[in-house]
Amino acid sequence: MSSETRTLARWLVDSRLDDVPQDVRHEALRALVNYVGCALGGARDEAVDIALRALAPFFGPPAARILGRVERLDPLHASLMNGISSHVYDYDDTTPKNYSHPSSPVASALFAYASVKRVAGPDFVHAFILGFEAESRVANAVYPAHYDAGWHITGTSGVFGAATAIGTLVGLSEQQMVWAIGLAATQAAGLREMFGSMGKAFHPGRSAQNGYAAALLAREGFTSGEHGIEGPRGFAAVTAAKYDLAKVTARLGVDWDLRENTYKPFPCGIVNHPTIDGAIQLHDEFHPAPDHIAAVRLHVAPLVLDLCNQQNITKGLQGKFSVYHGAAVGLVRGKAGVQEYTDAAVNDPAVKRVRERAVAFGDAGITEDQARIEVEMADGRTLTRFVEASIGNLARPLSDRQLDAKFRDQAVLALPPSQVDEILALCWRLDTLADVGDFVTKTVPLVAVS
Amino acid sequence: MSSETRTLARWLVDSRLDDVPQDVRHEALRALVNYVGCALGGARDEAVDIALRALAPFFGPPAARILGRVERLDPLHASLMNGISSHVYDYDDTTPKNYSHPSSPVASALFAYASVKRVAGPDFVHAFILGFEAESRVANAVYPAHYDAGWHITGTSGVFGAATAIGTLVGLSEQQMVWAIGLAATQAAGLREMFGSMGKAFHPGRSAQNGYAAALLAREGFTSGEHGIEGPRGFAAVTAAKYDLAKVTARLGVDWDLRENTYKPFPCGIVNHPTIDGAIQLHDEFHPAPDHIAAVRLHVAPLVLDLCNQQNITKGLQGKFSVYHGAAVGLVRGKAGVQEYTDAAVNDPAVKRVRERAVAFGDAGITEDQARIEVEMADGRTLTRFVEASIGNLARPLSDRQLDAKFRDQAVLALPPSQVDEILALCWRLDTLADVGDFVTKTVPLVAVS
Repeated sequence: MSSETRTLARWLVDSRLDDVPQDVRHEALRALVNYVGCALGGARDEAVDIALRALAPFFGPPAARILGRVERLDPLHASLMNGISSHVYDYDDTTPKNYSHPSSPVASALFAYASVKRVAGPDFVHAFILGFEAESRVANAVYPAHYDAGWHITGTSGVFGAATAIGTLVGLSEQQMVWAIGLAATQAAGLREMFGSMGKAFHPGRSAQNGYAAALLAREGFTSGEHGIEGPRGFAAVTAAKYDLAKVTARLGVDWDLRENTYKPFPCGIVNHPTIDGAIQLHDEFHPAPDHIAAVRLHVAPLVLDLCNQQNITKGLQGKFSVYHGAAVGLVRGKAGVQEYTDAAVNDPAVKRVRERAVAFGDAGITEDQARIEVEMADGRTLTRFVEASIGNLARPLSDRQLDAKFRDQAVLALPPSQVDEILALCWRLDTLADVGDFVTKTVPLVAVS
Repeated sequence: MSSETRTLARWLVDSRLDDVPQDVRHEALRALVNYVGCALGGARDEAVDIALRALAPFFGPPAARILGRVERLDPLHASLMNGISSHVYDYDDTTPKNYSHPSSPVASALFAYASVKRVAGPDFVHAFILGFEAESRVANAVYPAHYDAGWHITGTSGVFGAATAIGTLVGLSEQQMVWAIGLAATQAAGLREMFGSMGKAFHPGRSAQNGYAAALLAREGFTSGEHGIEGPRGFAAVTAAKYDLAKVTARLGVDWDLRENTYKPFPCGIVNHPTIDGAIQLHDEFHPAPDHIAAVRLHVAPLVLDLCNQQNITKGLQGKFSVYHGAAVGLVRGKAGVQEYTDAAVNDPAVKRVRERAVAFGDAGITEDQARIEVEMADGRTLTRFVEASIGNLARPLSDRQLDAKFRDQAVLALPPSQVDEILALCWRLDTLADVGDFVTKTVPLVAVS
């Protein structure tokens, strides 16, 4: 039997950071900046509060820290909490080729580990790159049949990412890495049936925690099957009606899936993004006064109206499923960050006024990556914009500065602004820090945030 | 959408021990006696040692205990360790209708819970019966397609058992029980690719631990999808090509799967059992002197020779896959307990002599539940026995006294004999104890065992 598991394990164990191209290393930093912003943005969410309350009686020695919170706990539970916070708003990264949210399971475990063991920046970023790559390749092998079957691929592939990333930091041998991958495979879980509940954000958290444990069990000699990925009763065959094992090992060290990573510009359903993008462009170019806007016409892909046709809304969560709200905040505020999806933003009179003047038309000639916006002003002018390819996708990635803005927008939910800039600057230099644990400590709120 | 999840949750929440028929309650005690024996027998296995060593740095406050060991730890990790020890020798119970090993995930969590919280005997046994029933019904719904696909059904269905059993003890509401089941569904995992490695015994342990956590998360309001079992992307649809949801809820409170539970009489591959059974019958009736045995002829189902055709062996583990060794220990010792599958037993000169004189013939006319044994004595006599239905199956269940013998055979591996009888007597009275935690404490070795 060919052994993709062993080939992957050997490559991971033999990899050196110097072998990783510079553009991939920079993309890793971009992914980590995006991840940390999301983890800080979600750190105070109710799902994290509940998980902490339910599991606190079982926390081990409080050596570890969670990003953006004051609690101390063991690093396995810290991995879980980081995973929940970083995914709870569905604002973390996406790899379009396999539809997973790849950074959360890997980085959630790594930051927890680094909060208890000294990890130098280069080693941290190297482990992140390897975990990301292993996880994404496993996902590629089973996508799309695996996802179509109902698996939440972020959870199922994520445990491979966490296991191999932590396995890299603890210096597993090739055989131990094979076992770590096997113990990851046999813990792979997560159903799409959980979408719309806290269970969804639980997936990357549990994957981080279980992958972390898999690496430590393997290090001590806890054995698994040798063919966790490719065996006849292994991960691929059991969870996907069709799969391509060659994707696990083809062009290892040549192709890097970090190059295929994307970052959501707006914390709402991706089908609204072209509309919001165009609305922000019109705002930035024309600065239309909200009370001079007479009508807004949105020409969108038909799917948008299936998913996001709510107009008469009062809650921030509803705003995420309203293409009208997306257009309104874009035109009125010139941005659509987490602050634009609060209850207050939805009830902001200027936003509400514009939202209520918007109409949307489904148009089969417009792709899900496109939108046409027409704004009729009280003075008779019509401002129009056609978005050919929405910001945030692979063709139009967020710039580093746009990632900065996204980071700040979220980080202020957990931290006083005085802390945010320092952390953001450090985050871009994670690959040079002497001890990543110091970075984690700096994300802990120094003063109470209201 | 029909909701099997909610119907099951409501039934669990409404159930009272008085509603459970007396024969089911006695079968629960039999299952628990068998379980505790297995947990004690495996408590000192290397897999448990390794898991303890790897995970000790993360143990929470040491309030809980493992069956048969001195370590103290938190109850989630204790659930894991109980699960590993009770399944590591593949000697725990089996429900033939769905091929799961049902008691380990449920009882492993319950004994861990009872070691930290006061649980009265009736409540403990009631929670065990409910967890067993929920788990087995979920397994029934997806068997056999789920198992055939490569899932280790003990792991995947086990997490439902632990979640509902602990959920019962902590008094979940119907809605909380729905979430506990959902959080169980989304953690269901375990691949048959792990068979032959420590990963197999990891499954019921992790299921116990994860189900326990699911119940506590649900109690605090951590939400899951509402249709964890039956949803279009729920457990059944995602993990089985064919399934029958009616089996989750049909005749709830009327049919009880504990009535379909079986206990292995011998700690080896089940295909060897008819041969061993017949050999022990010949031993008990004729007491053939080993050095007067001239030849042994075994007529067995052809599958036996596919799986268990090893004759020239030196290790205990090999003995489990040798029908010749099974026949030899049956004829020489009149038993085939864990002591007959040690390296010493395999190299016992009397056993070795008989094993080497045995030949086996595959016979398509003999079922996997049958065997014919012919023993040719030096004095010219031939002793023969045909086993029509092997001991341990539903038609010929182990008696309570045979369960006692099996318990003692294993328990002495963890405990001095002076402790064993007391624990066994208490185990049969688990449903009357004031505090099951006291029972767990009594399984801790009082003196070092060599």
